[in-house]
Amino acid sequence: MNFSGQHVLSVNQFERDNLEYIFSIAEKMEPYAKRKVRTNVLDGAILGNLFFEPSTRTRVSFGCAFNLLGGEVRETTGMETSALAKGESLYDTARVISSYSDVIAMRHPQAGSVAEFAEGSRVPVINGGDGANEHPTQALLDLYTIQSELKAFDQKVDGMHIAMVGDLKNGRTVHSLSKLLSMYKNVHLSLISPTELAMPDYVIDTLENAGHKVTISDNMEQNLNADIVYQTRIQEERFESQLEANKYRGQFRLNSDIYTRFCKSNTVIMHPLPRDSRADANELDNDLNQNPNLAIFRQADNGVLIRMALFAMTLGVADKVDKYQCEVPFYSAK
Amino acid sequence: MNFSGQHVLSVNQFERDNLEYIFSIAEKMEPYAKRKVRTNVLDGAILGNLFFEPSTRTRVSFGCAFNLLGGEVRETTGMETSALAKGESLYDTARVISSYSDVIAMRHPQAGSVAEFAEGSRVPVINGGDGANEHPTQALLDLYTIQSELKAFDQKVDGMHIAMVGDLKNGRTVHSLSKLLSMYKNVHLSLISPTELAMPDYVIDTLENAGHKVTISDNMEQNLNADIVYQTRIQEERFESQLEANKYRGQFRLNSDIYTRFCKSNTVIMHPLPRDSRADANELDNDLNQNPNLAIFRQADNGVLIRMALFAMTLGVADKVDKYQCEVPFYSAK
Amino acid sequence: MNFSGQHVLSVNQFERDNLEYIFSIAEKMEPYAKRKVRTNVLDGAILGNLFFEPSTRTRVSFGCAFNLLGGEVRETTGMETSALAKGESLYDTARVISSYSDVIAMRHPQAGSVAEFAEGSRVPVINGGDGANEHPTQALLDLYTIQSELKAFDQKVDGMHIAMVGDLKNGRTVHSLSKLLSMYKNVHLSLISPTELAMPDYVIDTLENAGHKVTISDNMEQNLNADIVYQTRIQEERFESQLEANKYRGQFRLNSDIYTRFCKSNTVIMHPLPRDSRADANELDNDLNQNPNLAIFRQADNGVLIRMALFAMTLGVADKVDKYQCEVPFYSAK
Repeated sequence: MNFSGQHVLSVNQFERDNLEYIFSIAEKMEPYAKRKVRTNVLDGAILGNLFFEPSTRTRVSFGCAFNLLGGEVRETTGMETSALAKGESLYDTARVISSYSDVIAMRHPQAGSVAEFAEGSRVPVINGGDGANEHPTQALLDLYTIQSELKAFDQKVDGMHIAMVGDLKNGRTVHSLSKLLSMYKNVHLSLISPTELAMPDYVIDTLENAGHKVTISDNMEQNLNADIVYQTRIQEERFESQLEANKYRGQFRLNSDIYTRFCKSNTVIMHPLPRDSRADANELDNDLNQNPNLAIFRQADNGVLIRMALFAMTLGVADKVDKYQCEVPFYSAK
Repeated sequence: MNFSGQHVLSVNQFERDNLEYIFSIAEKMEPYAKRKVRTNVLDGAILGNLFFEPSTRTRVSFGCAFNLLGGEVRETTGMETSALAKGESLYDTARVISSYSDVIAMRHPQAGSVAEFAEGSRVPVINGGDGANEHPTQALLDLYTIQSELKAFDQKVDGMHIAMVGDLKNGRTVHSLSKLLSMYKNVHLSLISPTELAMPDYVIDTLENAGHKVTISDNMEQNLNADIVYQTRIQEERFESQLEANKYRGQFRLNSDIYTRFCKSNTVIMHPLPRDSRADANELDNDLNQNPNLAIFRQADNGVLIRMALFAMTLGVADKVDKYQCEVPFYSAK
Repeated sequence: MNFSGQHVLSVNQFERDNLEYIFSIAEKMEPYAKRKVRTNVLDGAILGNLFFEPSTRTRVSFGCAFNLLGGEVRETTGMETSALAKGESLYDTARVISSYSDVIAMRHPQAGSVAEFAEGSRVPVINGGDGANEHPTQALLDLYTIQSELKAFDQKVDGMHIAMVGDLKNGRTVHSLSKLLSMYKNVHLSLISPTELAMPDYVIDTLENAGHKVTISDNMEQNLNADIVYQTRIQEERFESQLEANKYRGQFRLNSDIYTRFCKSNTVIMHPLPRDSRADANELDNDLNQNPNLAIFRQADNGVLIRMALFAMTLGVADKVDKYQCEVPFYSAK
């Protein structure tokens, strides 16, 4: 797959070698994201950052990734879609808005809308989340984080043990991550959830068809001695009522005490964020904040790397990033 | 008229030679807008992009135009006008906000508000639409598009035949375009609308006083053999009720079949956008999307050129754009 | 106090020598803010401009200040805080968002929230107003304006006479300014308000403990022969009802006639803005707009200088601003 000029709409469009290529580019972005060196490789380029549904962190992450490559960002937030209200098709909106930009990142509440938009777009479109459907950059940053965390212990994704915990029915991120994991070998997945919130069968089928070992349980403690624990939030907004959601709130809590007793000494803790820190939910206790294996904020950092990589690739400059290094006065002051 | 330091508030402030000068600058912007070359002529300049009423495409078009000249954009969207709610005058708002910017683009729902704002501003203000009153950059991009489309057939605005179709009573764009056309010679205008939505008399007077031929009709088919067909949307939000508006919905539909039967082989189709693509409206059918004479998306492209030209002119650098060309790494990858 | 890497959260964190240092840097920013020279000292830096409460002028002022130093701005406006609604702690929000930025400016409706956010932030946070609590950049720009206005008459803050007028109970700016003034010597303060809207005792205590002379009155005219008259707006939104607020509306009006009769020939008029220009309020009449001693718009200008200074200082480049001067094509056209 040649990414230059291509859309990034779904995790389904990748093969394993695509993932490895994306991750190799993302890794090269680290010194730029850490403000050690600077590149102007996208000087003169404009990102259309279209967030028709609010998502501060994803929106800002895309915007910063583009700025870090030297480009400019024009932004739309909220359903300021008067044109759509007047009966405009997504095709027309895409045709017009894409003429202003060199690449577009888009989030929209409606499943399938980003792909529909992409058909009218004259420039590459990167899906920033379309409702319950897809959020490919989240899946990529999750897998990238797993790979880079394991590397510190000389481990690989192939052969690892990952425990996914919480609302596995409604959590979009665990579905997409599972799809990506099905391209790897010999993964052991412990799927821990209330029975009613279990991982959908089609996801389990995909994993088992890939030859992975899948363990299903509603007991968290007994399944925490994994390489990775991927904790999730109860997706309360997807339930029929708050009362229904409340049944599951606070069922699987991970804290420092439980970590010490049930996890391995170097079990990596992940979470797609936001974590619910209210006292009766508290799925990942603040007493873990100083645990060096808590990787949740490194996930956010890696999101910038993944997005930088995708921008550089879709705009065809992945191999030119280093060439356009430039001086930055304030770095030396840091 | 010397544009440096001047406001652009109304189509009434232009003479024909002003239009021709603006269009000559806009034409020079094309290689920059098409990402063939890049200029940094506005490096260090800040646009205050004040959209007190939502309009994604106009807002983004202004912002991109400024970025394409090398400048930065600071933006305000929506009626986030707490200060106005506290009794602040537009004069004070203008005085303060203009001190942050080198030029301002402004949209506001209230007629006359942009001109009032301009009185307090310390920097040039470009009207991005003030209610039902004026939207001069739309009129300029429409006329620029007409001129450049006709040029491909060795025709000129002088002597052309244009059919305006739809809600000619409430459509601000056809009023403004007519004013600009009154500066040209021997134009034939076919004004096609339901009787109740006819072009206002004062616009017709202006056109006839300019010596133009004006034909009024409520029959679309018989009047489509024009050089330009300028289709418009029923401005439903201006009607007393949705029921009242529905009477006119879908009355004048242009599609591929009608085009083939009634238009000339090279009739150019225009529309100010958004077009209403709902099945019962559908004033410009999607089956025209592949017609090379459909100019509606070229209108949007030309909007960027016009806005680049106005920025360069009001900031006094129209003649320096080429001098500040600079390399752009990602262009060569395109 | 070394400002590099530090938060700016409260006026309480400053000593007098800090103020003087900040003001000396702010003064050096003037040619850059006036577009006489340009610097790129913050090229490659990203400001996270987080306005969880609307405030167009403060937000745009921060953003422009950063652009004027060569940096990029990523922005969040309004309570688009879906993550917080899902139970995320301010600590987590700060941890994530701060990883995208080099410095953060933040406004939030809740007192104390900015300081709490700062605890999770990996980069310096500048308080842009947290409810009724603090707005330190406003206090700094007010004092900077007083100092620079007085300098024109060879006067100093030490020994000056300032009259504060209006709603001294609810006006956050007069409280903060008083705190800063308590670091100076021999100031005479005339505090003019309705009895019910008097300056709080703890502020008066601070001023008297600093050795200042404090005069309390509800008669404006007799107390206007000061060096500075700092007029304020009745903070209507803080009253129990509009009816209650209306009692005080329009009580202390300053206009050209009163200025001529009761002020000194060079009394400087200040106001934190917005001023209430409705006919029945009108605390600072428009007939003063041409009075050269009306400093209210110079206050806004000085806000940019103060914010530029704080950005340069917290990012450790205050002494490098001049070194990174660069050419700006459009300046010579001005």
